[in-house]
Amino acid sequence: MSVLIVGSIALDDVKTPVEERFDLLGGSASYASVAAGYFSPVNLVAIVGEDFPASHWEFLQGRGINLEGVQRATGKTFRWSGEYLWDMNTRETRSVALNVFENFSPSVPDHYRSSDFVLLANIAPDMQLKVLQQMEKPRFVIADTMDLWINIAQPALLKLLKCVDMLILNDSEARELTKETSLIKAGKKIQSLGPRFVALKKGEHGCLLFGEDEFFSCPAYPLEDIHDPTGAGDTFAGGLTGFLASRGKDKVDFASLKTAVVVGSVLASYNVEAFSLERLRRVEKKDILSRFAEFQDLARFDASLP
Amino acid sequence: MSVLIVGSIALDDVKTPVEERFDLLGGSASYASVAAGYFSPVNLVAIVGEDFPASHWEFLQGRGINLEGVQRATGKTFRWSGEYLWDMNTRETRSVALNVFENFSPSVPDHYRSSDFVLLANIAPDMQLKVLQQMEKPRFVIADTMDLWINIAQPALLKLLKCVDMLILNDSEARELTKETSLIKAGKKIQSLGPRFVALKKGEHGCLLFGEDEFFSCPAYPLEDIHDPTGAGDTFAGGLTGFLASRGKDKVDFASLKTAVVVGSVLASYNVEAFSLERLRRVEKKDILSRFAEFQDLARFDASLP
Repeated sequence: MSVLIVGSIALDDVKTPVEERFDLLGGSASYASVAAGYFSPVNLVAIVGEDFPASHWEFLQGRGINLEGVQRATGKTFRWSGEYLWDMNTRETRSVALNVFENFSPSVPDHYRSSDFVLLANIAPDMQLKVLQQMEKPRFVIADTMDLWINIAQPALLKLLKCVDMLILNDSEARELTKETSLIKAGKKIQSLGPRFVALKKGEHGCLLFGEDEFFSCPAYPLEDIHDPTGAGDTFAGGLTGFLASRGKDKVDFASLKTAVVVGSVLASYNVEAFSLERLRRVEKKDILSRFAEFQDLARFDASLP
Repeated sequence: MSVLIVGSIALDDVKTPVEERFDLLGGSASYASVAAGYFSPVNLVAIVGEDFPASHWEFLQGRGINLEGVQRATGKTFRWSGEYLWDMNTRETRSVALNVFENFSPSVPDHYRSSDFVLLANIAPDMQLKVLQQMEKPRFVIADTMDLWINIAQPALLKLLKCVDMLILNDSEARELTKETSLIKAGKKIQSLGPRFVALKKGEHGCLLFGEDEFFSCPAYPLEDIHDPTGAGDTFAGGLTGFLASRGKDKVDFASLKTAVVVGSVLASYNVEAFSLERLRRVEKKDILSRFAEFQDLARFDASLP
């Protein structure tokens, strides 16, 4: 089944302790769409400016992503510039230029509105809500968010939480939102705010999935080197949603969600191996299957105790 | 098979944000012996002072722990006092009184010396070495350590690492010892210092086990409340070693080590549910089996990808 994704498309400048790169294809929707596209057709809602390179447009189109819902507006594309410190865990935003995003009013094309699976990738929660209000009766809605919205748009975020089936966020964001130190308490508290499911990302420590009286701990892939963490969370969300949609609207259960979390983790683990979407440009379905099999072995142990 | 354990026996004063308790049974050897004792006979080497309560002595003896190698010296028992801050993750040592430990020269009783399994629980690495030198030809030697020894006794610790099969330490200690940010790199670097196996504890994030070209990620049990983290690492080490010894000296392979890590995690997850050894006093073998089964489900997911 197809997935509707709304999010940002950006041009990024990224500096790591090793290298600095400019004008990279970025934004939550770019990563999420490409990741979801491995498993399901993607209908994208986003906005770009006049300066958005044709090569990036063609890359997304070449991935089978439907760009009919992507507005091309007068002005410049959204720009983000960030720097990762020596440990690759700490990120500093150097600059943000909203540009065409500033007046973005997402409009969902008519024939997108019946989508059963919706991924509200990371953008302002009021924009996520605007998209959701245009949908007919989606079977499963997933929202991603970030610390910025917890800090500056919490009322809208809390309103959004009542309308989604699943929230994706990272550990520090979960603690910030709930004021709980224990991640287990934090996950459960977020469920009480609306979403039946919560995926709590922990970076190098994997991911926790909270369901209705169910729980899953997804291990992290043991990477020695991370080249660029940008977009890992968006890739995770996209892979997860795309996989879930591929199973169909009658198979949205905790077992499918667990596998979806692993698929998202597989794609995210590839994504951080190079800048921007460079690694995903080369990843094929067989690579996903191969690392998926590795994930199975990561946490498997002999079932028999004497 | 029996396990030889050397470590500290202490009287602890522990303060948490909720409660303060005094004169608790503590020390790495106390936790490790009780945990190992669920699976294998334990021969303990340690030291206590004249003030060591008979009730504690009888408790350990009642657990079937052989105390023949525990010296009763003139003077006071080793004392530790610590406080856990609001998040239960940060610990401050308020005071340490070595007392009888100051001049402790561990002596391994003759008939202990042929033990195949040795756990050098957390004490100064030169004392761990002294015990190891008295052993005949152990099949598997596990050492636990802490940040203190990495800081003040690193040469002795590095010497010890060349003589052990497995090192247990936590994430911040691994980073401190190796100066690596990536835990994957840190684990591998420690292997290059001697031990073929490394168990890298990550508290609420579980544990990583590094083998010879093998890797295992053990999930953490999703506890909402932690009452007293003291001794969790010692309990983990003891449970792990005791279980491994119970399998016999011909079954020390990566599969057994993975199960041993899970067993250690099960015991540690119980231990933090109450002060001192109070929870382990009540935990029975059937409780271990029951939580072991829960651990299996924590990270299990459907193997089939479409």
